[in-house]
Amino acid sequence: MQTSFGVYGRRFNVRIVVIGGTGTIGVEVVRLLKGRHEVVVAARKGAEASCDISSIESIGALFSSLKEVDAVIVTAGGFPFESLEKMTPEKYLMGVNDKLMGQIRCVLGALPYVRDRGSFTLTSGILAHDPVKGSSCGAMVNGAIEAFVKSASLEMPRQIRMNVVCPTLIKESEKKYGAAFPGFDAVKAEKAALAYQKSVEGLQNGEVYKILY
Amino acid sequence: MQTSFGVYGRRFNVRIVVIGGTGTIGVEVVRLLKGRHEVVVAARKGAEASCDISSIESIGALFSSLKEVDAVIVTAGGFPFESLEKMTPEKYLMGVNDKLMGQIRCVLGALPYVRDRGSFTLTSGILAHDPVKGSSCGAMVNGAIEAFVKSASLEMPRQIRMNVVCPTLIKESEKKYGAAFPGFDAVKAEKAALAYQKSVEGLQNGEVYKILY
Repeated sequence: MQTSFGVYGRRFNVRIVVIGGTGTIGVEVVRLLKGRHEVVVAARKGAEASCDISSIESIGALFSSLKEVDAVIVTAGGFPFESLEKMTPEKYLMGVNDKLMGQIRCVLGALPYVRDRGSFTLTSGILAHDPVKGSSCGAMVNGAIEAFVKSASLEMPRQIRMNVVCPTLIKESEKKYGAAFPGFDAVKAEKAALAYQKSVEGLQNGEVYKILY
Repeated sequence: MQTSFGVYGRRFNVRIVVIGGTGTIGVEVVRLLKGRHEVVVAARKGAEASCDISSIESIGALFSSLKEVDAVIVTAGGFPFESLEKMTPEKYLMGVNDKLMGQIRCVLGALPYVRDRGSFTLTSGILAHDPVKGSSCGAMVNGAIEAFVKSASLEMPRQIRMNVVCPTLIKESEKKYGAAFPGFDAVKAEKAALAYQKSVEGLQNGEVYKILY
């Protein structure tokens, strides 16, 4: 499928990989984009393409099988959610190795396979800006991803762009996590998904798209 | 030495440990505070107290020998400074393990030895907000530290506070790093040191003190 540009300069019919495409946000990103683009759904398991973001080899295997893509979206990665008194250096490193380094591994591993003027869209989260009890690791990881994107986006080769989506609590996760987020106005995953479309089809680079309401 | 309060409520005569107290910023923090407080200078080597922030055991040994302190200042920690094309997951982890996890280890290791209403003051840096070529690891690490402080400060026990100082390029480091920071207005280390005094003697919690000019 060839990349083409509409009258308003918006890119459609591009080839997109959504890593974490079976997750709460990922499924809505896939649903939104698959009518307009070629979308490859990747996840640790249960997806058409297998990708474990904890392994640079797994990421490399995915992209060498796909050969060329226009956009990489990462909606994968977790971190421990525990009160400060229960946190240890090892628990912080769990979040570092999973969500933070997992997303950075995706960027480094996929970069040679992304076409000129392609894009990366990573995922941070509201905890970097609006912390709650138990969020010290999540805040750290999300803040790290946003600062990474702001810096690394300026050095991307071949006019490749990189942005990050920072969603608040997701409506579909409210039953599981809502009690930890008092007073937060949850948004539906399909609303958060719009920011990924904006990143892929838009022009901006180094942007943090905050989806707060 | 006992903690006492002046007429304006400012704390003086407190016991402060400066980890990284022999570094460019650290020496000025020590110089500024030692006339007003009891200051213990700690560093990997060459200081009155030995502390290797890459080792939780080394941090534990320092604080169990000191027994009680009022304030912990950390001005230690490095990261690789390299263009994106030369970065690898391993190089990002070097910055994570040194500056990011090093400062978090100091907080976790020192916390049991910090007196009620004491404080932590960590160090981030301008790259989190104003990136340059080669700063993707530094930005990531500094952004992580700031988000960590904003979140963890809200969960500190016994009215212990935690802030972070975010300095721009330091005048004394201009010869070494200046070429990488075009158009940056360097500040003298003695000016950046004021923010550490503000954090230790002031009342704020979870604050990012940006020292940009």
